[in-house]
Amino acid sequence: MHVRVNAAASVDGKLSTRRREQVAISGPEDFARVDGLRASVDAVMVGVGTVLADDPSLTVANADLVADRRDHGEPAQPARVVADSRARTPVDAAIVDDVAPSYVLVAEAAPADRIEALEATGATVLVAGGDRVHLPRALDQLEAAGVDRLLVEGGGELLFSLFAADRVDALSLYVGSTVIGGRDAPTLADGEGFVERFPELSLDAVERLDDGVLLTYRA
Amino acid sequence: MHVRVNAAASVDGKLSTRRREQVAISGPEDFARVDGLRASVDAVMVGVGTVLADDPSLTVANADLVADRRDHGEPAQPARVVADSRARTPVDAAIVDDVAPSYVLVAEAAPADRIEALEATGATVLVAGGDRVHLPRALDQLEAAGVDRLLVEGGGELLFSLFAADRVDALSLYVGSTVIGGRDAPTLADGEGFVERFPELSLDAVERLDDGVLLTYRA
Repeated sequence: MHVRVNAAASVDGKLSTRRREQVAISGPEDFARVDGLRASVDAVMVGVGTVLADDPSLTVANADLVADRRDHGEPAQPARVVADSRARTPVDAAIVDDVAPSYVLVAEAAPADRIEALEATGATVLVAGGDRVHLPRALDQLEAAGVDRLLVEGGGELLFSLFAADRVDALSLYVGSTVIGGRDAPTLADGEGFVERFPELSLDAVERLDDGVLLTYRA
Repeated sequence: MHVRVNAAASVDGKLSTRRREQVAISGPEDFARVDGLRASVDAVMVGVGTVLADDPSLTVANADLVADRRDHGEPAQPARVVADSRARTPVDAAIVDDVAPSYVLVAEAAPADRIEALEATGATVLVAGGDRVHLPRALDQLEAAGVDRLLVEGGGELLFSLFAADRVDALSLYVGSTVIGGRDAPTLADGEGFVERFPELSLDAVERLDDGVLLTYRA
C-alpha cells in the first residue's frame, strides 16, 4: 500500500485554530490539486478528531474527475476511512454517508453498541489493536480489502502515529501565508513527538501555489 | 524600527522537541545565511525560554562579517536582547556576557534583586509593562537606544506576542525535511493563538537550501 499524506498548514505550522476551527489556509488552485489527489486514490483517510471537528465528506468534487474514474473502471468515489479507536464517529457524519464506501478502523476497546450503530450505516468496521487502533495491522486489513493507494488528510494525532509507524511514503504540504498561532493548535504531527530518531523526508518539489507554496516530499 | 523574524522549523512546524532540545533542522548553507542576517542588524533578540533552553550567544561567527561591520563603523557584534518579564535570565547566560552589549526587557513585576544582578553583568535593563513585558513600548525604548534593525530568533511565545502586536515586518523561515512531532513541542507562533483576524504575510521568495527550503515573507 502506498500512503500519501496531504495537508495545508499556516506559516507557523498549524492545521486549524486552538478551537479546531478551520481557517482558509489555501485557495482555489490548492483545492483543485487536492481534488485531483483524492481522485487518484482508492481511499481517503482522516482521524476521528477531524471528523468530530469538521465533518468532512472527503469526496471528489470535480465531475470530470469522477467521470474519469468511472471510465477507468474504478468506483466513482474513493472509499473513506476514519481511524477511530473508540468508534466515536457519529452515525450521521458525512464520512459514513452512502456516497461512497466507508471503513471505520477501531480498537478492541470500542463499545459493541457503537460498532453496531456504525455498521448499521453501511460502514465496514475493521478491528485492530487493544486499547488504540494498531495502525500497521489496520492498514494491512484495508489493503486486503483492496485499498492500494491511500491518501491521509489529517489530523495531527493520526499523522504522528503514521510517521511513528513508518507508514508515510509521501507528503504534500501546502504552506499558507497566514499566521494562526497557539501552543494548543493542531499541527501536522502532534502526538507525543519524537525525541530521538526523527523521521527524515526528502524534498522532491517546491511550487508556488495560490498565495503560498506547495512542498512535496517522499519518505 | 524594522523587525525581522528568522527561524528554522521542522516540516511539521516545530522549533525543537517537546523537551525543548534543539534538533539539526538546517545545515551549513542556512547557518551561513543566519550569520549574515545577524551581521546585518543592530541587535538580535530571543525570549527568555530560549535562553533557558539553549543559552545562545547570538553573535556573528564569521570573522569577515565582523570585520565588515567594523569597516562600516559599526560595533563588531550586534547587541543581544532578551524579552524576560520576570528577569529570569541567569547571570552566567551567554546572552549577557561581555562579547557585545546586552539588553534585558523586563516588566515592573520583575524582582528588584534579579534586576540588580543582571545590571551587575553590564546588561541594560529596560522596564515596560506591569505583569508582562509590553513589547511595543519595550521596542520603542530599544529604538531610542539606537536599535533600528532588530532580528528576532524565537521562541514561539515571543514570536506570537510580536505577531499579536503587529510588530513583525519580515519573516525568514527555513523549513527542514525532518519530522519532530509533539503536541507540546514549540512552534513558530505559540501563545494563545489567533481565533479571528489572522495576520497575513506576503510570500516574497522561495529558495531551496541545504535539504529544505527557505521561505521569505514580508508583513
